[in-house]
This record gives sequence, structure tokens and C-alpha cells, in this order.
Amino acid sequence: MHTVLDAVAVDMGGSLSKLAFFEPDSGWLGETIRAWRRHPSYAFAVKEPSLSLRTKSGVLRFSRFETADAEALATSLALLADLAAEHPDAGEIGDRLAVTGGGAFKHRHTLEAAFASSAAGSVSLEPSDEMAALAAGFRFLMANHGPAAQSYWYTVDKDSMTLSARKPLDAASASLDAVLVNIGSGVSVLHLDGGPTGVARRISGSSIGGATFWGLCRLLTKYATFDEAIAGASAGSRDTVAMLVSDIYGSGYNAVGLDGSIVASDFGKISTMAHNPREPGVLRDADLARATLVLVLNNIAQISTLVADKIASSQDRGEPQLANVFFMGGMLRPGVMEDILVTGLDFWSGGSLRAAFSHHQNYLGALGALVGNKRSLEPSSLVATHVDGTLVTAPDDGVGP
Amino acid sequence: MHTVLDAVAVDMGGSLSKLAFFEPDSGWLGETIRAWRRHPSYAFAVKEPSLSLRTKSGVLRFSRFETADAEALATSLALLADLAAEHPDAGEIGDRLAVTGGGAFKHRHTLEAAFASSAAGSVSLEPSDEMAALAAGFRFLMANHGPAAQSYWYTVDKDSMTLSARKPLDAASASLDAVLVNIGSGVSVLHLDGGPTGVARRISGSSIGGATFWGLCRLLTKYATFDEAIAGASAGSRDTVAMLVSDIYGSGYNAVGLDGSIVASDFGKISTMAHNPREPGVLRDADLARATLVLVLNNIAQISTLVADKIASSQDRGEPQLANVFFMGGMLRPGVMEDILVTGLDFWSGGSLRAAFSHHQNYLGALGALVGNKRSLEPSSLVATHVDGTLVTAPDDGVGP
Repeated sequence: MHTVLDAVAVDMGGSLSKLAFFEPDSGWLGETIRAWRRHPSYAFAVKEPSLSLRTKSGVLRFSRFETADAEALATSLALLADLAAEHPDAGEIGDRLAVTGGGAFKHRHTLEAAFASSAAGSVSLEPSDEMAALAAGFRFLMANHGPAAQSYWYTVDKDSMTLSARKPLDAASASLDAVLVNIGSGVSVLHLDGGPTGVARRISGSSIGGATFWGLCRLLTKYATFDEAIAGASAGSRDTVAMLVSDIYGSGYNAVGLDGSIVASDFGKISTMAHNPREPGVLRDADLARATLVLVLNNIAQISTLVADKIASSQDRGEPQLANVFFMGGMLRPGVMEDILVTGLDFWSGGSLRAAFSHHQNYLGALGALVGNKRSLEPSSLVATHVDGTLVTAPDDGVGP
Repeated sequence: MHTVLDAVAVDMGGSLSKLAFFEPDSGWLGETIRAWRRHPSYAFAVKEPSLSLRTKSGVLRFSRFETADAEALATSLALLADLAAEHPDAGEIGDRLAVTGGGAFKHRHTLEAAFASSAAGSVSLEPSDEMAALAAGFRFLMANHGPAAQSYWYTVDKDSMTLSARKPLDAASASLDAVLVNIGSGVSVLHLDGGPTGVARRISGSSIGGATFWGLCRLLTKYATFDEAIAGASAGSRDTVAMLVSDIYGSGYNAVGLDGSIVASDFGKISTMAHNPREPGVLRDADLARATLVLVLNNIAQISTLVADKIASSQDRGEPQLANVFFMGGMLRPGVMEDILVTGLDFWSGGSLRAAFSHHQNYLGALGALVGNKRSLEPSSLVATHVDGTLVTAPDDGVGP
């Protein structure tokens, strides 16, 4: 018998708190989870029905809260405990919750206090290291739900600098060593050893991350949310803001192979403007957002390449074994962010590294904390019927799949 | 006999144009150069009398113009040609000018047009590759004017995180392999082979450079100049702007050895502020400038460390030979920028790399273009009387040393 708290895991980052939870098809636990999803206390969650994964006996679901609303998250989780207690079959609540991410330390008391006022009473948080959880979630997905369905990459057309349609990742390539790049408020760069049980190690990171983009956009533009700023960046151009190689040279810098269209200095064009760049109408919000996004993501692509070089040189296996850089994390979104990362990694690595993405990119830490909870969840219940299991796209209508 | 144009070299970057020139103690050339320095057309130059270097037969001098004022620079150089022609001894003007930097390509026509309207007539620009010029200037200074007088480094007190007084660089360490990091509008990272004739190769770079700092400061603060923004940053704190590890975890992230005071996300605190960060009085200009400077320089320290790792791993000499990272470039200033680079490099490299600086950090490219002009300048005239030659601190009063 599962406890209801064993069916949930929370990954609390500096900006976003991500939930992964398992909803069995039948029994008191499934009914309790379904009741919770219909409850007003869960309405604060941003739901991700398109990411739901069918397993042998239920559905894995994903959603997120703002970490600034830790109180709302805590209230909702406490309500889940109450719903389990109120179920006619009197489901077991449990006294431990799997968590990961730095916010689980910072907001520990908020969560514990909410449980203390609920039917759960005293609940202790069981933290997984966030890098280990990320790697565990990634490996679990690759091994049990199929790389081709869960991960994808693009090729770059060098002439038009446009991306191909998404290409499914082949299973063989998913078992090689990889670099995992987690884009949250900040950035972590991990080396994942090939194979299903390989360890993950944090090699480096960057403080220029997702919250840098959004923090700067709040200062520079009128966008009200992170996702609005990303949408703005999609429509903007870096070229009115960034100083390009051609702005310095008048053309390319051929001696070192820098094309004229390469950014020489982010925000550099602002630095030499004759007029005041703060005057209204001088700069478009969309262009400022795009230039900021390029600053952040191009730098992440460069640091990822340098770390991949470092890993490859330490392996000394003759041929480089490492080809895939998986980008993930709570502040990564499909679309323009992928465009910049794919072309950036292609530029910095000279085409030797491949930018790959996971549909569950925001939820790998939460998933890792959930599947790493060895105490009582039966791992087999979380596994797909077929290893190439596709997304079930279960509607999040409260009725279940 | 020198020509007057052979006594000058110009390094035109995206933001600043740097001049290095040789003023003989006696003869028509020295008199012409002294007359030029007194002339109103040279008044646009920011002079650097404290950097002047005594040589066997004269003084090497340094100054800079804004690249945006390329017209003023061109007018002044054309006037120098006119002054040579007007000298009673009718000095030779020459028809070639040593240049380097991307701006020399972009502003070629501006310079050529000014010479065409002067006594010089047709003058062709002779470009040196800017990375080669940088390395040549650096090597020349180390070999001929003494590392102890021209370069310095600091130690870091780990408890107070404060820097020691400047320490002179020892000659032995100056002949090791080094990483040269040029901070202009953008950033270039070079590997300089040890020894006086070793080659320099551009390994990587970053588009997050000096003009990124100043471009962002023009948008975020009221500072009117780059140097005002640097002075502001000296007085500011990153902690109201950046999200620290302790802001996420409530403490340090011990599993991966990240202290709570480390920046987790530049500008991350802005991203989660409940109130509007654009409202007047919410943020201080000095703090915004400091946070921007930390973003730029901490990233440069990290990329420098990753490149140094890459160089060391490719050398395969058993013991790492590389210890010094020399920071230089037109947008580097003593003071707060050095503080951040020294502590940043110490953090990223775990203390294995040493941040070193050169008094002539802004002028190494121009100096390299000058001493690399093999056509007619006698190299011996540019060499110090003693190899440990110190700065002469020649007053720039128009009268000469």
C-alpha cells in the first residue's frame, strides 16, 4: 500500500517549484489524487497535461507553482493529506515527503507548518541532492519511457541558419555519456556517465541563468511575466542592441574565423549610441528581450562546450564519446530558447556537439525525487507498458485518463 | 631616418582607439611629436603620462580617443603629418601607418581621407592582426622593460576576501605559458606560449565584455560615462540585485561546495521581487552597476579558467606549467574590476591560477603594432636602458621628459 505523500515529489528552485506525482488508475489513492486536482487549492498550479505519461497502472503527472507562492503550494499539499484522510477507505497519509532543490531547504518550515495543521500532522521532508535527482529523472525517462518519444534534437541549415523539424533521439545515442545543462535561476552543468546506472557529477555552472534574463527584462522592458518576455524575445532582434563583429570591423574578422554576423559584444551597440538609449521609442522591448536572451543562452552554450571539452579530454578514450548536450530546467521553454541554444552550441563546438531537449525538461528533478523514493512506491508502477512509450496527453479535466 | 608615421601606431577597438608613439629625445622627429602633443587637434586625446616609458633614446607615450570620434583621431594624425612637413628640417612623413583592431578596417576611409587632405597625401594602413599585436606588445614589455616594473598581482585573504597590496611579478614566472584575456567591447582569450618568441593563439572569447557593462549601465543607471559607472560600481553592492546561493537554500549548498555568499543568479533577486523594480528608489544606481560588473567579470574569470584547463590538458606535460592569467584591454581599469577578477579567478580555479595585470593593459595592442613595425624603427631605440626599467612618469606638459 502506498501512502499519499509517497505519490508526490517537489523540486523547489529559486523561481519555480515543480511537482511530479503518480495517479493510479484505480483505488483510493487514484481517487484522492483526482479529487485533489479538482480542488480549488490546486488551482494555483500551472498544469502540464501534455506531459502526462501513461504507466502500467496509472499516469505520471506534472505541474508547477511559483516558489514565491510557497504558502499556496504548502496549503495545497496539506489539503491532499486531508483528502486522503477523508476518503471512505481512509487512505494512509504517510509522514515523509520527497523533495529536492534549494527551496526545499529555505521553505521547509512553510511546508512543515501546513502539514502540522492538516490531518498529516508531523511530516518530515526527505531531500534528494538536486543534481542527483536531475540525473535520476533523466535516466528514468530514457530507460523506461523511451528516448525517441521523450527527447529530440534539431539540425541547423548553415545557409539560412534555421532549424529543422524536431528529430527523435536514437536509443543508442541516449546511452552515451552526456552533458546535462540545467537552466533554472542559475545554471548547473553536469557530466552524466553513460549507461543506466552511471553517476552524474556537477562540473561547473553559471550565475547567468533564467532569472538573469527575467530580472533584466523586468528592469529593461514592460513585460509582466517570464513567459511574456520569452514571447517578446521570439519577435525581437538582437541587432539593434548587440554590437556585431561587422559593427567593429565593417565585415568579418577573418584571421580568427569570426563571421560579421557574430555578436562581438552583448548590449555593445547601446554603449556607443550618440543619443540617450533610455528615451522612449529608441529601443523596442522585444529587441531588448531578444538581446538579453541571446546574452544568457549564448553564454550557456559556450560554457557547456568548454565543459564538454574538459570532460572529453579527461576521458582519454581516443575517440570522443560525448556528443549530446541535454538542456533542461525550470526556466527552459520550447521555441526561441531552443533556437538560440542549438545555433549557439553548433557555433561554439564547431558542429561537434548536439543540443538535445526533453519534453519533460522542467520536471526531471521532481521526477528523479519521485522515482528515487525507494521506500514504498513500486518502481514498476511508474514504468511505461512499452519502453518506447509515448506521451499520453491525458486531459487535465479532473476525470483522469 | 624614421618617418613620422613610423613613430605612431593605432589600435582601434569597438569603443576606444589607443595610440602608442615614440618621441625621440632630440632631432626633428622629437620636436615634431612634442609640437603635436601641444596642438589643439591632440586635445581630444585622453593622455596617459603615468604610463610613459623611458627608452635608450626617447620616451614611449600612450593616449586614447573614443572610436566614435574617429574623425577627431584622423584629423589629429593628419596634423602630425603637416607638422613634420612644416619642420625646418623637413622631416619625412612616410606613406604607411601601423594599425590594429577591428576599427582600423571599419574607419580606414576616414583615416585615409584625412591624410589625403594633408601634407602626407596617399597613406596606406598596415594592419597587424589584433591578437598578434596584443601578444607582441605584451612580450616586448616583459622582455625589454622588465616584468617586475610593468606587471603585478595580488594575493587574496580568504577570511576577509580582501586583496593584498600589489606584488611585482617575478621574471621567471613571466616566461611561463600564460593566458592573455583582452577585455575590450568583447573579450578574447589567448594562449601565449612561454618564451620571448612564442606564438599567441586565440582559444576562445566572450561577447559579454566591457561594452556589455557600459551598454547595460546606460540603460539601467544615470551614469554619464564608462568611468563614472565603474566608480559607482566601486561603491555599490551586488547583494540587493543578485540572487545568492543563500537566497535559494537559506544557507550554502554543501553537497557541491557552494558557499551561501556565492552568486547563484545575476539579477536573480530582481526576478522574484514582489514590487516593481523600475519604481524610483527601489534600486540604487551603484548597486545596479556593481551587479552588472560582477555579471561580466565573474563570467570572464570562469571562461578564462575553463580555457586555462583546456590548454593545460592539451599540453600533457605532467605538471601544469600555466599559472598566470594576464587581464588587459581597453576597458579594464585598476580598482574594483581587479578585485572582482582576482577573487573570481581564485574561486573558479580553486586557487590554482593567478590573476596578473599590466600597467599598460589598455595599450598592449597599440604597442605591439608599433614595435612590430619592422620597416624602419630601430627596435633598440624602444628598449629600456635597463631591463628592469621602471615607468618614467614623464609629465605630459608638452615640454617632453
